[in-house]
Amino acid sequence: MKRIGVLTSGGDAPGMNAAVRAIVRKGIYHGLEVYGINQGYNGLIHGNIQKLEAGSVGDIIQRGGTILQSARSEEFKTPEGQQKGIEQLKKHGIEALVVIGGDGSYQGAKKLTEQGFNCIGVPGTIDNDIPGTDFTIGFDTALNTVLDAIDKIRDTASSHERTFIIEVMGRNAGDIALWSGLAGGAESIIVPEENFEMKDVVERLQQGTKRGKRHSIIIVAEGVMSGNQFAEELKKAGVTGDTRVSVLGHIQRGGSPTAFDRVLASRLGARAVELLLEGKGGRAVGIQNNQLVDHDILEILGQPHTIDKNMYRLSKELSI
Amino acid sequence: MKRIGVLTSGGDAPGMNAAVRAIVRKGIYHGLEVYGINQGYNGLIHGNIQKLEAGSVGDIIQRGGTILQSARSEEFKTPEGQQKGIEQLKKHGIEALVVIGGDGSYQGAKKLTEQGFNCIGVPGTIDNDIPGTDFTIGFDTALNTVLDAIDKIRDTASSHERTFIIEVMGRNAGDIALWSGLAGGAESIIVPEENFEMKDVVERLQQGTKRGKRHSIIIVAEGVMSGNQFAEELKKAGVTGDTRVSVLGHIQRGGSPTAFDRVLASRLGARAVELLLEGKGGRAVGIQNNQLVDHDILEILGQPHTIDKNMYRLSKELSI
Amino acid sequence: MKRIGVLTSGGDAPGMNAAVRAIVRKGIYHGLEVYGINQGYNGLIHGNIQKLEAGSVGDIIQRGGTILQSARSEEFKTPEGQQKGIEQLKKHGIEALVVIGGDGSYQGAKKLTEQGFNCIGVPGTIDNDIPGTDFTIGFDTALNTVLDAIDKIRDTASSHERTFIIEVMGRNAGDIALWSGLAGGAESIIVPEENFEMKDVVERLQQGTKRGKRHSIIIVAEGVMSGNQFAEELKKAGVTGDTRVSVLGHIQRGGSPTAFDRVLASRLGARAVELLLEGKGGRAVGIQNNQLVDHDILEILGQPHTIDKNMYRLSKELSI
Amino acid sequence: MKRIGVLTSGGDAPGMNAAVRAIVRKGIYHGLEVYGINQGYNGLIHGNIQKLEAGSVGDIIQRGGTILQSARSEEFKTPEGQQKGIEQLKKHGIEALVVIGGDGSYQGAKKLTEQGFNCIGVPGTIDNDIPGTDFTIGFDTALNTVLDAIDKIRDTASSHERTFIIEVMGRNAGDIALWSGLAGGAESIIVPEENFEMKDVVERLQQGTKRGKRHSIIIVAEGVMSGNQFAEELKKAGVTGDTRVSVLGHIQRGGSPTAFDRVLASRLGARAVELLLEGKGGRAVGIQNNQLVDHDILEILGQPHTIDKNMYRLSKELSI
Repeated sequence: MKRIGVLTSGGDAPGMNAAVRAIVRKGIYHGLEVYGINQGYNGLIHGNIQKLEAGSVGDIIQRGGTILQSARSEEFKTPEGQQKGIEQLKKHGIEALVVIGGDGSYQGAKKLTEQGFNCIGVPGTIDNDIPGTDFTIGFDTALNTVLDAIDKIRDTASSHERTFIIEVMGRNAGDIALWSGLAGGAESIIVPEENFEMKDVVERLQQGTKRGKRHSIIIVAEGVMSGNQFAEELKKAGVTGDTRVSVLGHIQRGGSPTAFDRVLASRLGARAVELLLEGKGGRAVGIQNNQLVDHDILEILGQPHTIDKNMYRLSKELSI
Repeated sequence: MKRIGVLTSGGDAPGMNAAVRAIVRKGIYHGLEVYGINQGYNGLIHGNIQKLEAGSVGDIIQRGGTILQSARSEEFKTPEGQQKGIEQLKKHGIEALVVIGGDGSYQGAKKLTEQGFNCIGVPGTIDNDIPGTDFTIGFDTALNTVLDAIDKIRDTASSHERTFIIEVMGRNAGDIALWSGLAGGAESIIVPEENFEMKDVVERLQQGTKRGKRHSIIIVAEGVMSGNQFAEELKKAGVTGDTRVSVLGHIQRGGSPTAFDRVLASRLGARAVELLLEGKGGRAVGIQNNQLVDHDILEILGQPHTIDKNMYRLSKELSI
Repeated sequence: MKRIGVLTSGGDAPGMNAAVRAIVRKGIYHGLEVYGINQGYNGLIHGNIQKLEAGSVGDIIQRGGTILQSARSEEFKTPEGQQKGIEQLKKHGIEALVVIGGDGSYQGAKKLTEQGFNCIGVPGTIDNDIPGTDFTIGFDTALNTVLDAIDKIRDTASSHERTFIIEVMGRNAGDIALWSGLAGGAESIIVPEENFEMKDVVERLQQGTKRGKRHSIIIVAEGVMSGNQFAEELKKAGVTGDTRVSVLGHIQRGGSPTAFDRVLASRLGARAVELLLEGKGGRAVGIQNNQLVDHDILEILGQPHTIDKNMYRLSKELSI
Repeated sequence: MKRIGVLTSGGDAPGMNAAVRAIVRKGIYHGLEVYGINQGYNGLIHGNIQKLEAGSVGDIIQRGGTILQSARSEEFKTPEGQQKGIEQLKKHGIEALVVIGGDGSYQGAKKLTEQGFNCIGVPGTIDNDIPGTDFTIGFDTALNTVLDAIDKIRDTASSHERTFIIEVMGRNAGDIALWSGLAGGAESIIVPEENFEMKDVVERLQQGTKRGKRHSIIIVAEGVMSGNQFAEELKKAGVTGDTRVSVLGHIQRGGSPTAFDRVLASRLGARAVELLLEGKGGRAVGIQNNQLVDHDILEILGQPHTIDKNMYRLSKELSI
């Protein structure tokens, strides 16, 4: 192994830069050359590739987004596109590729692996929905961004005795909603992984009012329905008070990564390089039970996402 | 003058608590008793009033929202409602009232003044649209919240080479849009006070792309149109790239007030009490040309809001 | 079990309020009465105790510090002091006590347990040095505060081509230094758990300069030596450039807790109540390998603290 | 006028990059070429100069520090050094120079002006101590950094019933202390511009304790004495409680600039270019009474700094 490549793909996530930095520096430290592929699989197909030095990744550990940029590529979903990508890699003498991204990015890594090109997947997405890891890079930062928004909205909700419905990201996963809702003291948390009854939501609101609560906050994961739709359903269920909807949107993807995300990104990025140095490929790295792990990338994809049921239950008990 | 009252009204704004604290402490320091009216004019009508001590306003200077809460009151718009309010004030021996709020709150203060009850208006709103002051309490905090969102969104916009349309608050005023857009390096800023041509917006986008910009950010004041509507118009005008809309919403009202807002709130709140101690009423305090000022509240309302045209022009020159 | 108590003790840590909230609400949810003891063991001895309701802990999950306050108590270190404390608990009908705090607080809980009074320890300290848990409540928030300071100082260091020595907290443990240093991209990290050679530090500085780095940041854990002492040693070792020292100090203990800390505090606080409901006492709760655990509080104390050697090594590899 | 230069000098301040961006873009917009001089007057002497394009200052408006770097230069204080600088400027065809910095930087600009080279001074320093402007670039950001620290320390102070002495920057000026102390609700604020009696400080502490305050915060400007020295004096004056000192240090210079600082920097930077386009030189720009102004740089220096006495008095009235 002499030369490896790295790319970021899919939705950007805070900490991707910290992962890129770790891969580049760890590689160089162990005598490898590291090449950056810009604009994800799209840039791979088009040979948008340059060598990275230790200094190329200086002063980026604290930056949101990804210096390698990201892009969609329909072409790469085809075998021809994948073949073009592999040719570009070979042309540049790149022997293995580290892919940082979410579900779709892993699909690409899987395809390359199936076609015989060594790939390592590093889980980078705010959604926390990648199999084989308890936490993805970016999740902790997004959580704290959402939490900051909840804290701000509570100021207003409390001043006006309002109910707020806050729609948060997460694609089909409820982790952002569950964690931020528990941390933000939300009255109700609606996630795709658990059924809910609107009458329970209403009951909780009424209990809160009875107990003298000055505000109610309901967190709705985008994977269930939109915040506006939820507001309509709530109205249909007979809630007549002053209800507002806030859709947090893209602020959830940005921002300087938290300590947790930078450390996680550094460790996972470095672990990916270690695997390559050990001659392994077709693996997805992760952290499980607080230990660095790696799994077969071909086997891991498609495993259903679950949430922590105890935490879900706890959120109900603590918002009385 | 022995006893004064204070209430907050309308949309809450960061720094209202700092103003309440200043009014209470300044009053007590000069031998007055200060009563807090909860829930705005609605609470006034219903006698939701209690005495505040120096300690009642301890540890609130840093909190968003308003400990006195706010509420709408249709009843107070009627002469009967106003009379009820005055009766409550007299019943509690309150001789003058400080009202912290925006345009609607000032209307109430004007009504009370017209009916012979001494009122002082303190400008508290994030919108920066109150006549008689260059800055309102809450504007600076809201600006920084918006700016933080712009910075976060730029991370994502830059990683994906996207155009982002960000809808910000401000009611009929463009100050939040203009200041945050200038501070955030936005490519275009759309405000109610200035006409815009969609073809100019498009041209700026194209120039940016030609020059190699990796992202474009357009700030749209809610007083012009919604972010989604703007996105549609942009599409109609032929912009075909990856465009996203972010509606910042209620996070703009919350958060711990900035240094500027806390100092402004402290100074204006204290000035209001000074005016009452000097036997004046029917005034609106403000800061103009960096000096504390006060105007006749009856005369000041209805003056049209303007933005700084030089700043608007500058924003165009700097976003090349 | 009908009635339980809760106190916070030792240095305050962000998330203590979230833990108090969880204990109170979880207890009430399961039919218990919960009493708060103010000012730690000192307040316990003097009977500074009051009943807490669900509403007593509303709107505190986001607040730093501890609403129950904390205090030192020399008296409680004596058997007589402990006996007085137990008498107060019995007088109030309190059957078990949850203690939130660090090492010293656990010592108190151990004493009470030895004297036959049921205690559960909840690890609350920024230092991350409590045996039986991978993470303590407050550690993640402190980390992010330190990281924010490092990011700010790097702006200045980079503008002036300076070396900065940053002294961080942690008592005898190096976790804050190690994690913040890795996350902050520090050139050297000095922790009590690992020996260091000043000539290695100097060499790393020189390599950095040679490679064109515009700044160098050295994190020194207070458990090793003070930042000023380290600066002197560095000077003795021949480093002559523009070196500055920053002692972060007490800002590290404050601030609104992060999502991670609020969730951890909520889970551990609730788990403490569950143990009491199960009739268990003399336990210390924690999180290990991402699972909630509990250990015998008598056995756990005194176990030596270790740091993650792989992370320490990684920090050297990534700061080339 | 065809070609202008820009440099940053002295201690770095948040917003310097926004000013550099404004100068470059405003210049280019009006047909000028703009050259950046790296590392202040030191780089000027050594010809460390390169051309800046619109894209060179992209994505820097939000960054702390200064991309042009700063450095001390003893040589530039001599007429020979100044002559070397002017030769470098002429060699590069630069006809006028914009200097962003504090007092020392202005001295350099004055010297160049006296030697016949057109300079414009832009006030960039966190200390807010430059004559001819009500606010300097960086002051507002530093204020908010200090305020954030005060808020954090209050959490701890309140939890432990402690007195905290916080030493803040400002060189010989008390503005950071006064504004942050007023905004932070400090019990006492010690500034160089006003005498203080230690017995008044003690009395205020005692009154606070009597009234039930759980904490006391004293802000000491570094221009008066160090925090540690103040603690000793306080002890000598008989204060025996639990007193802690926090020296905020260099975090005050860093961080992403606030909205206020970015807007101010943009406006002042642009104004400097306008003056040059109008053929003026030897001016210092500023904002006074909320209007952009400019003064003769030769006359303005040496004017004594004053603080707002009303604000100082107010801080005493509000901290009862």
